Amino acid sequence: MRQKQTIAIIGTGAVGGYYGALLQQAGHHLHFLLRSDFDQVQRQGLKISSPNGDIILPNVHAHASPDTMPPCDLAIVALKTTANHQLQYILPRIIKDAGAALTLQNGLGSDQLIARLIGPERTLGGLCFLCACKVAPGHIVHQDYGLITLGEFSQKGITPRLESITNLLKEAAIPAQSIEDLKLARWKKLVWNVPFNGLSVLHHCLTDHLISNPALRQLSIDLMHEVVEAAAVCAGIIEPAFIDQMIDNTEKMVPYAPSMKVDFDNNRPMELESIYGEPIRQACACGIEMPQTNALYLQLHQLNGSRSADPVLVN
Amino acid sequence: MRQKQTIAIIGTGAVGGYYGALLQQAGHHLHFLLRSDFDQVQRQGLKISSPNGDIILPNVHAHASPDTMPPCDLAIVALKTTANHQLQYILPRIIKDAGAALTLQNGLGSDQLIARLIGPERTLGGLCFLCACKVAPGHIVHQDYGLITLGEFSQKGITPRLESITNLLKEAAIPAQSIEDLKLARWKKLVWNVPFNGLSVLHHCLTDHLISNPALRQLSIDLMHEVVEAAAVCAGIIEPAFIDQMIDNTEKMVPYAPSMKVDFDNNRPMELESIYGEPIRQACACGIEMPQTNALYLQLHQLNGSRSADPVLVN
Repeated sequence: MRQKQTIAIIGTGAVGGYYGALLQQAGHHLHFLLRSDFDQVQRQGLKISSPNGDIILPNVHAHASPDTMPPCDLAIVALKTTANHQLQYILPRIIKDAGAALTLQNGLGSDQLIARLIGPERTLGGLCFLCACKVAPGHIVHQDYGLITLGEFSQKGITPRLESITNLLKEAAIPAQSIEDLKLARWKKLVWNVPFNGLSVLHHCLTDHLISNPALRQLSIDLMHEVVEAAAVCAGIIEPAFIDQMIDNTEKMVPYAPSMKVDFDNNRPMELESIYGEPIRQACACGIEMPQTNALYLQLHQLNGSRSADPVLVN
Repeated sequence: MRQKQTIAIIGTGAVGGYYGALLQQAGHHLHFLLRSDFDQVQRQGLKISSPNGDIILPNVHAHASPDTMPPCDLAIVALKTTANHQLQYILPRIIKDAGAALTLQNGLGSDQLIARLIGPERTLGGLCFLCACKVAPGHIVHQDYGLITLGEFSQKGITPRLESITNLLKEAAIPAQSIEDLKLARWKKLVWNVPFNGLSVLHHCLTDHLISNPALRQLSIDLMHEVVEAAAVCAGIIEPAFIDQMIDNTEKMVPYAPSMKVDFDNNRPMELESIYGEPIRQACACGIEMPQTNALYLQLHQLNGSRSADPVLVN
């Protein structure tokens, strides 16, 4: 039996709370960092409602500050990327010298940021395919799925350390899979995220409308091609058939609200930099422009600015 | 006589408008990129009121989009850093292959961003010491000073290209000086900016109160030491006497509102990343923590979030 690990969950929303609860149930020493939900989670613990069986954890180690957290073997980063300004003070303090961080955050940029803060050799990235939402402080409803695919940041290929973390997840009943090429996997996920996140916000609609309206469907496909072309230079080849497959999958899905649409409707900040800004900048640094993606990005920035007290554009 | 250059001004606020007007008056071909002031500046041109003599330019080339701008020898970037998300689409389109960009923006991070977008060898950075403000669209009041110190991004030392741009500025009646070490100069400017910008916002006061209140004065000095210690690892040695000199200068100044205070009071976004976030991240990447600077940064983020419709922290 594996030795129990000390694991920090940075950001205890739906993603962090769900996976953290499974890891604690498997016997690891979990430490949850929270802000707004701290009081309630410290008093009442965490509750997961799931078709796989509910999980009730009346006692969890809740922390309002990284200063009270012990040195960890693994830090799982599950903040929204819009809160990434917090990481610079948190991560370097809480990870053991031989420990690592695994970011489950959306889009591009978080891997690089964390590598800068704690070193590329201690950085792993994961993509999670999870339908879950936080319905109250400390109460997460798991609807479906839950796979994490994870890879090394600093090299391609599957290292023993990566395999060991994948196994740790699997032993906690979390479906997990090691991947050879994290960067390519992140770009592949953008093929779907770039069109459907932003367009659902700008057009106040769900995926079904984007797929059935001819003009929006064509724009979605054009944006997907732009991502595939940028990926070819920045990360690797994504077969054009992948676009057809994504369109086909989306056609068959129940009408779905992408995470950016959910954030926008709940008046939370949108993850504009990780889904749009950073991919455009990485492409630009490789000599590739993404004009249609950029147009979407600037419109969303404008929308963000017009909703808040602070204008985004200053001239 | 020098050949006339084609020069783009990216962001025509007080800084961009003032220096752009001087360069146009010197006979160069200026192209101004604007957003909110486009209509008025296109119709009425630019006006500078200055103790050195007013400048009236009834006709300027105003642009609402980079798509109408010609290829430029030099792009002067004078946006607020909070609008840097616009640069990725602007800069690569408008600079000639042999051209360069000079960013006059505050703090850290813009040099690196621009180097990523157009190449480090085409990137220069400058610090400007200018008291000016935009009082109406296209109307800038120059109060005092105006020196630009500028350096290469990709290497220390003074290259012929750097010297040539410095001379171009001087010939347009702009006080300018080439510097050997841009990075160190940026950190030196932070020694003042880090304490006085954020503390003036949090304590709703001007520099005189920060200097005369014993607790705030001590906190300012502590923050300055933190910057000097981080600079020693990230950029180079700043003599401790520099701190005394900055305190002394601030004591003798008329009560002054730092730019972040002016932005905050006018409900504009604060330059939190360039003045705080990026220095802390660069220090962190060098193994140095800046705990007091970080505390200030997180408080300012919190203040930003509480003012806007969008909460900054998401848990």
